[in-house]
Amino acid sequence: MSDNASVMNVDGASVSEATFAANETRDIVLPNQTEHVAHIAIDIGGSLAKIVYFTSADLNGGRLHFKKIETEKIDECIDFVAELMADARLLKSDNTNLVLKATGGGAYLFYDKLEARLPGVIVQKEDEMDCLITGLNFFITEIPYEVFTYNEQEPDPMQFEEKTRDIYPYMLVNIGSGVRMDSILKVTGPDEFSRISGTSLGGGTLWGLMSLLTKATSFDEMLEISKDGDNKNVDLLVGDIYGTDYTKLGLKATKIASSFGKVFKKGVQQSQDNFRSSDIAKSLLFMVSNNIGQIAYLNAQQHGLKRIYFGGCFIRGHPITMNTLSYAINFWSNGDMKALFLRHEGHLGATGAFLKHSVIRRARHSFSFSEHNFTPDINPNPRNVYGDIEETNVELRPTQ
Amino acid sequence: MSDNASVMNVDGASVSEATFAANETRDIVLPNQTEHVAHIAIDIGGSLAKIVYFTSADLNGGRLHFKKIETEKIDECIDFVAELMADARLLKSDNTNLVLKATGGGAYLFYDKLEARLPGVIVQKEDEMDCLITGLNFFITEIPYEVFTYNEQEPDPMQFEEKTRDIYPYMLVNIGSGVRMDSILKVTGPDEFSRISGTSLGGGTLWGLMSLLTKATSFDEMLEISKDGDNKNVDLLVGDIYGTDYTKLGLKATKIASSFGKVFKKGVQQSQDNFRSSDIAKSLLFMVSNNIGQIAYLNAQQHGLKRIYFGGCFIRGHPITMNTLSYAINFWSNGDMKALFLRHEGHLGATGAFLKHSVIRRARHSFSFSEHNFTPDINPNPRNVYGDIEETNVELRPTQ
Repeated sequence: MSDNASVMNVDGASVSEATFAANETRDIVLPNQTEHVAHIAIDIGGSLAKIVYFTSADLNGGRLHFKKIETEKIDECIDFVAELMADARLLKSDNTNLVLKATGGGAYLFYDKLEARLPGVIVQKEDEMDCLITGLNFFITEIPYEVFTYNEQEPDPMQFEEKTRDIYPYMLVNIGSGVRMDSILKVTGPDEFSRISGTSLGGGTLWGLMSLLTKATSFDEMLEISKDGDNKNVDLLVGDIYGTDYTKLGLKATKIASSFGKVFKKGVQQSQDNFRSSDIAKSLLFMVSNNIGQIAYLNAQQHGLKRIYFGGCFIRGHPITMNTLSYAINFWSNGDMKALFLRHEGHLGATGAFLKHSVIRRARHSFSFSEHNFTPDINPNPRNVYGDIEETNVELRPTQ
Repeated sequence: MSDNASVMNVDGASVSEATFAANETRDIVLPNQTEHVAHIAIDIGGSLAKIVYFTSADLNGGRLHFKKIETEKIDECIDFVAELMADARLLKSDNTNLVLKATGGGAYLFYDKLEARLPGVIVQKEDEMDCLITGLNFFITEIPYEVFTYNEQEPDPMQFEEKTRDIYPYMLVNIGSGVRMDSILKVTGPDEFSRISGTSLGGGTLWGLMSLLTKATSFDEMLEISKDGDNKNVDLLVGDIYGTDYTKLGLKATKIASSFGKVFKKGVQQSQDNFRSSDIAKSLLFMVSNNIGQIAYLNAQQHGLKRIYFGGCFIRGHPITMNTLSYAINFWSNGDMKALFLRHEGHLGATGAFLKHSVIRRARHSFSFSEHNFTPDINPNPRNVYGDIEETNVELRPTQ
């Protein structure tokens, strides 16, 4: 903790249910944080830079804002931070230095640029995984209606978890946009964690194969294409082999026996033109999600963990992805483990970096909700509830 | 065991080092089996039917032969069996019925056809996994120079294992040509085994994606293409992210961080024409082999198993595949587990079915080698030593 760390009151924190713009990550409302928080945090990944900053709302506390800007537009991104810093300087009561907490691979790669382009700002690098866990712990323990399960076999697929502080041990599967290591972390206490495994067959593989095998050129386009797909035109199902459920092994006829198992035919040249893009896209999505689910389960089993959080920019509020991950965890663990998702999945690292600079103050048993004790719809649309976004969320001015 | 089961003397059994035809699975020589063995076994998989049969060699015992015929040519395949049966009938001393042991999904699918086309032959169905394990146990315990390890970091990559009867517990990872379930079995005794896991991202996935992304139209063509490939043109490596080894996590710069991680570029339409076929082929091969290795390791870890046999028609004596699987097992287990390969990997089920009809007789401590105590080259070419083959091995007459 540095000398000029701020104190942040998270009592009554909640996800804002008001949306200012479509496809925007929702703010976190901090009704009791009346003093301005001047520092800003940035998590610069291989494809996206995530920014977290605070704005005051006069008598009503303040808000945490979450932005994403493409890393290739790093100059615009730094301009955005510079403008936020200029605003912060005006609101600042003392003349201590402004601080930018920086994490992610880009914190190292762009350190000199950040220093040069942000005069009078101290850039402090923070460890990536440390920030990830700090951010995740904050969302789990402090923010109601943040963590949820997703199961399309239930009448209401999306169910929010109770906010709790009894969270250890747990596992975090962090699957990004593919330009970093996908990691599996075991977390046993607020500052106790280790990387227990990883997979090289994750987000980057999905997007890479999608762009070779479909005409889509953005993540959301790819997910959109997959919606109408039918994977059984591409995948070999248990029913294709056995004609029916393979009850001896407890396998349903619709279970995938072999991803892309129907494509190869000896002596026949295949190409993507012989198959529907949507079928290929769905098969790829199932393939990668099932595989991540299986590897997550096997690692959780090895380490005796039952709560598996999925973070990173892989999921994007996409129902099929969440349902596949949940199904895989449930299938392999016989219902003994739980797949958990977060509305701020892409901002764990940036939020953690932001909090590294603050002493968190909270009531001991505060479970009150702000914003008029808002309760979301019983059966919300995950896409809306996520409020999560594509790289389109580039705003070069703060929203307030 | 049926009433007219034969007795088979496996004392001094060995792999024949004589080759009768290129690309043929090598015979097993049985120098002490002087009596003729009349029954035949067939394992009909989704893409290949495997046949095992015996021929006598006058005073020098006999041989087990291993054939593969494409399942789509099932009629030719049954003609071949019918001719073998006609020969067997001539050599038979009694007038008991001839027996065809049949296993694999096709044993059920083609049962009526087999019965109709083979008059006077009793077709006996055998459980697929049961046969797999019976066959594997036979090769491990009875056949010298059958089981080997493969590690290209050693001066002699291919090292044969000592023949042993102290083999339990072990794990079998059975990865086929993709038209069946890829299974992971735990084996604790001669007749004690269970399917502990499987993966839908195996052989069929590799061949399916290969045929979508390259122009190759056969397994061997695909493996051939991959030889000259450089996966770093397609895969994101640890060094691409961190500039160097990520020593904190023990990851080398050349380790794959994300398979196909270099392909996706937002807003840019990609196609296979933008990449070399050989690079894509190698990346796919690494992706699937690494993933199978990781899942095999995690399952072995969960069940406390250290010896992992790879069976099925996936490997085909391909050095890169074996090296990748070995490397993955070694990497994840910190050298605590061993990946093991078999020269008759594709014939485990058919051999098991064949042996189901025989009482095996063997000397208690027989470790003599036949064929003049033949020892293979110190550094053999795995492709030759396998003597394993493509579907080209269709011969419609026995070799003797």
